[in-house]
Amino acid sequence: MSTSTPHPFDKAIALQHSDLRAGHFTGTTSPDYWNMVGPFGGTTAAVALQAVLQHPDLLGTPIALTVNYAAALEAGAFDVQATAVRTNRSTQHWTVQITQPGASGAPNMTTTATVVTAARRETWGRSDLAMPEVPKPEAVEPIRIGPAGVAWVQQYEMRPFSGGIPAQWDGSLQHSETRIWVRDAQARPLDLPSLAAMSDVFYPRIWLRRARHVPAGTVSITTYFHADAAQLAEVGTGFLLGQATGQQFFNGFFDQTAQLWSEAGVLLATSNQIVYYKE
Amino acid sequence: MSTSTPHPFDKAIALQHSDLRAGHFTGTTSPDYWNMVGPFGGTTAAVALQAVLQHPDLLGTPIALTVNYAAALEAGAFDVQATAVRTNRSTQHWTVQITQPGASGAPNMTTTATVVTAARRETWGRSDLAMPEVPKPEAVEPIRIGPAGVAWVQQYEMRPFSGGIPAQWDGSLQHSETRIWVRDAQARPLDLPSLAAMSDVFYPRIWLRRARHVPAGTVSITTYFHADAAQLAEVGTGFLLGQATGQQFFNGFFDQTAQLWSEAGVLLATSNQIVYYKE
Repeated sequence: MSTSTPHPFDKAIALQHSDLRAGHFTGTTSPDYWNMVGPFGGTTAAVALQAVLQHPDLLGTPIALTVNYAAALEAGAFDVQATAVRTNRSTQHWTVQITQPGASGAPNMTTTATVVTAARRETWGRSDLAMPEVPKPEAVEPIRIGPAGVAWVQQYEMRPFSGGIPAQWDGSLQHSETRIWVRDAQARPLDLPSLAAMSDVFYPRIWLRRARHVPAGTVSITTYFHADAAQLAEVGTGFLLGQATGQQFFNGFFDQTAQLWSEAGVLLATSNQIVYYKE
Repeated sequence: MSTSTPHPFDKAIALQHSDLRAGHFTGTTSPDYWNMVGPFGGTTAAVALQAVLQHPDLLGTPIALTVNYAAALEAGAFDVQATAVRTNRSTQHWTVQITQPGASGAPNMTTTATVVTAARRETWGRSDLAMPEVPKPEAVEPIRIGPAGVAWVQQYEMRPFSGGIPAQWDGSLQHSETRIWVRDAQARPLDLPSLAAMSDVFYPRIWLRRARHVPAGTVSITTYFHADAAQLAEVGTGFLLGQATGQQFFNGFFDQTAQLWSEAGVLLATSNQIVYYKE
């Protein structure tokens, strides 16, 4: 029996089940990962993934996760429904929905997701996206986050060395690329749910691109996983190199591409999201 | 009354409905866009989008489309169910499923998709992904496709000028980037379904990366649209510049990122997919 306190991330994505095979789970939003008007989208993505990972019918490991943020979750309990809609010999397709009880009693759809899992086999492999040459994590200062900041940011140790949050919101235009070293603030060995969450730690590219603090929020994120248990174990509680860049900013939405490498240079995850922004 | 023959693409994505508001549609696979063991994935993506576009409850225009290829469609009739699971003030979230009658009578799930639509407003805009300097389409020879090729390829006029299909399957390693000019072989004004389809015209990056013709197939694709009616009209029947690059090739799956610009240099769509490959 362990008497140690669970990690805040494990608390945030903890799910209970009434009927495991039916894929119905319940959870509770975490104040530790609260964002401005709802939970950090990274934890919501991790919750969707976690439901699939806990399902007894799971085949293989996740390779693709798409999460659509239909509405901000309210603080409190939520329901997760994970359904294996198709199981092939080596791949499996899941749909996931996160709902909360609505005012009228009808469920309130907050999140839809799809997950593809697969039984991977060892094959030839290579990368066409080499880790850029960057300073070591120890050579970069962590950002200091005051108590006025949103809660979830405090759960990560972030060491940005280019493209940090603009010091002045002066409307100057610049390229939207950010590079940071990142890991859980409280040590926790990397797994796929935390990799899914860390794919969403980058602040909105529009803030950097325009040096303007406009309202912005992720509408949909897709993350591809390129890691199995060995790659994750090699990282352990170490840093990931994160890179995020805006691509096209057009009439209220921009897309943002992101990569996460291990310190050893292995590309563990590639992620893309489309983000709402206000003029 | 028009007596002209419909364009093959319009035939391929044509949907009938029994109950429009219920979002239930039927269609038929097109021999014109047949791939090796099923329809070209681009048309399947376009069908999912088309169901949303034809739904009377549609809010705004598509900004994000994720399509998961759970199983190859068999030649013949299919059912499409498009459901608006959440409608907000300016965004709307859809789930789409494409099924075919199964051997036992139970529906056979072939495709799941999610679509986000939005009422766009004019805002500040800019690109951080400029069109590369490339030769004009007129300066590039179209590839000649013999009758032995798969059908769908013949529906596109493709003018690759770098990263073409290897002339020899000699196992030599090279970078996985391809650049082509592409448009419908039979002239058709660009719209969002054809933009969705053209996001998937690139042959598997693994063939180029390894100069090996291994089995490969898209498992999931996500496309973000950065164009509205004005951008699409400006393209008309003109060429798009397509660029596709592999990122991480690992244990049976690689991801492939793609961009489509208008000839005038507007980034119209960005797309990512994860692709199965066999050693």
